Amino acid sequence: MEILSIGGGVCAPKGFFADGLNCGLKVNGAADLAFMRSSAPCNLAAVFTSNRFACAHIRHAKAHKGKVNGVIVNSKNANAMNGSEGITAVEKVVAAVPFENFLMASTGVIGAPLPVETIIGGIRRFDWNAACGDAAAKAIMTTDRWEKQIAFEVRCDGGTFTIGAMAKGAGMIAPQLATMLCFITTDAAANQEAFQAHLNGALDESFNAISVDGDMSTNDTIYLLANGASGVYEAEAFDAALRRALHFLALEIVRDGEGATKLVAFEVKNAAAKEEAKKAARMLSTSLLVKTALFGADPNWGRIASTIGAAQIECDAESLTISIGGVTVYEQGINRMDREREEAAAAALRAESFRVVCDLAVGAHSYTSYGCDLGHEYVRINADYRT
Amino acid sequence: MEILSIGGGVCAPKGFFADGLNCGLKVNGAADLAFMRSSAPCNLAAVFTSNRFACAHIRHAKAHKGKVNGVIVNSKNANAMNGSEGITAVEKVVAAVPFENFLMASTGVIGAPLPVETIIGGIRRFDWNAACGDAAAKAIMTTDRWEKQIAFEVRCDGGTFTIGAMAKGAGMIAPQLATMLCFITTDAAANQEAFQAHLNGALDESFNAISVDGDMSTNDTIYLLANGASGVYEAEAFDAALRRALHFLALEIVRDGEGATKLVAFEVKNAAAKEEAKKAARMLSTSLLVKTALFGADPNWGRIASTIGAAQIECDAESLTISIGGVTVYEQGINRMDREREEAAAAALRAESFRVVCDLAVGAHSYTSYGCDLGHEYVRINADYRT
Repeated sequence: MEILSIGGGVCAPKGFFADGLNCGLKVNGAADLAFMRSSAPCNLAAVFTSNRFACAHIRHAKAHKGKVNGVIVNSKNANAMNGSEGITAVEKVVAAVPFENFLMASTGVIGAPLPVETIIGGIRRFDWNAACGDAAAKAIMTTDRWEKQIAFEVRCDGGTFTIGAMAKGAGMIAPQLATMLCFITTDAAANQEAFQAHLNGALDESFNAISVDGDMSTNDTIYLLANGASGVYEAEAFDAALRRALHFLALEIVRDGEGATKLVAFEVKNAAAKEEAKKAARMLSTSLLVKTALFGADPNWGRIASTIGAAQIECDAESLTISIGGVTVYEQGINRMDREREEAAAAALRAESFRVVCDLAVGAHSYTSYGCDLGHEYVRINADYRT
Repeated sequence: MEILSIGGGVCAPKGFFADGLNCGLKVNGAADLAFMRSSAPCNLAAVFTSNRFACAHIRHAKAHKGKVNGVIVNSKNANAMNGSEGITAVEKVVAAVPFENFLMASTGVIGAPLPVETIIGGIRRFDWNAACGDAAAKAIMTTDRWEKQIAFEVRCDGGTFTIGAMAKGAGMIAPQLATMLCFITTDAAANQEAFQAHLNGALDESFNAISVDGDMSTNDTIYLLANGASGVYEAEAFDAALRRALHFLALEIVRDGEGATKLVAFEVKNAAAKEEAKKAARMLSTSLLVKTALFGADPNWGRIASTIGAAQIECDAESLTISIGGVTVYEQGINRMDREREEAAAAALRAESFRVVCDLAVGAHSYTSYGCDLGHEYVRINADYRT
């Protein structure tokens, strides 16, 4: 098996088309409407937010049965908390698409009616045979600073298939702008259940391992569309390629978190159980005190230790070892910080990316979660009054 | 029964003494060491952090049996993550106090050795017959902006007793400075079990209902010392006075939270269960997106709704009603925001204190949690490198 990184995103697999344009939702003229579609009907695998107030496109998609030809995506309006009118709006939009069996995905302001006619105006202007994955990846952005896409060609015993993907920003992003969205396309050939299992399996170490602000949106959605056009499938190869793609996009989302200046991997090692490692790693990646210390490049291991202690997992101060950016600062009950290590750890924290490792030494289970620092820019973005 | 607010704090009840001074831990000369003691041995009720890495004074106090004569308190050093040397340090400090059966409480930097000799120097300078509750309340402060104390005289059928209390800042406060500490004194006469039950019962709507940053310190401690000097006790009256005292101090701590400009009550009404109301109320008070919106005086109800939806409790968008500062912004599935309400809600958010009410309308259980906004000052305080 060989997994080759190739250029592009959702249009890389055979038979997929995509594009983006400004239909008028974003008043600055930036692209705000995207489509992706396949020339052949697709098996759909999907994952949605577990927020009880799931938005209209999720309720519409959950009611859909059978194959899917594509997805229409708008930014700037989440179409959430809009009641039955929200569902009607989705139905009108997908009815205006010149293909059947389309789904929708929305991201943006919660509680504002979806401007259906504006979106339909954009739908009429699309060139549905365009293969501009870049333009689609840009159109789904909200406060993202850059578009996020990736594609792999996978060579396995049975032949070659391709997988492409794009995603947009994590967290609840800007004022009332919600959502993480991710779209995956592939020409690999398998049944719906196989793709859903691959998708579920890849989440734990990608999108479920990241945190920007710990808030869960009403709109989080992942769609995987598989048209089978390559005629090729090998479970192990597909799994590996999908995991690489989702891991890459998940980390891109953290790197591009609101106001983030650093991508931090929090590894909790040698815990008594996987769930305990996961709980502590996630608490580290969401602790305000840890996040602000990282922003200040302060190798403040007391906050890290206190967060581990607060996680209500099996641990012992006498067996715990903490390292920051490769520098051991606390080792099995002993504070190892001296001037030299203090400076080395502070220097490591000034890098764009580094690891914080907590070795509990009470078991054999590990988990890594990914987070970012929290600084003034986060406050500025999120405290600004909606305009 | 009559509960009268009187001046003072821990020295208000009969037979209690307290004072504070600078022993040299704070280099700026501010008070950093306090004692409180009773002329007669006290029943002790106590509550400690559930952090697995509880600090040395907590491990020392948990091992103590029987009555207590007083407490010695230092700020600036948490004596946490110091292993067995931390316990030895506590033992040396209490041995230097000229009274037996003293406990200790510490707050400050995690992982630095406790300067035992410096503290003993301060102990030698104390006037142990001073009754300066103010000085003690100041000496236990870390980044608190003001001292927090209260006292009530309680008149009941059997006579009169008094309750006094002081507390210091919530959250993990400044870099590596940990802890909420609260000290309660009373001359009411009851057994230890009765006081412990009163204390446990009063927590749910006071210290367990507040959040500054959602982080749990290694040092959080509440001590209640009861010397029985009044000879009076009435359970209902004591309970009412204790609840009022702790509720007041808990809210003071939030008002004085790091960088906080607003005290916000988050009420979740008519939930299916008390635990569900509590879960949602606490999530509201700790959501970064809600806290930053409040800082920006942005009546951004979408973030509030999304947080309720993320709480995984019984709720329905069609029955939910949200009001901000008395202004109904979302009512049973309908966005009620218009220009007038937008302005009224924004004006309410500019007040120093207001309520956010979420009526789930699915049951009959309610809970109110108290939190504060999160702005640039929080980031400044917590990102500053330790100096």
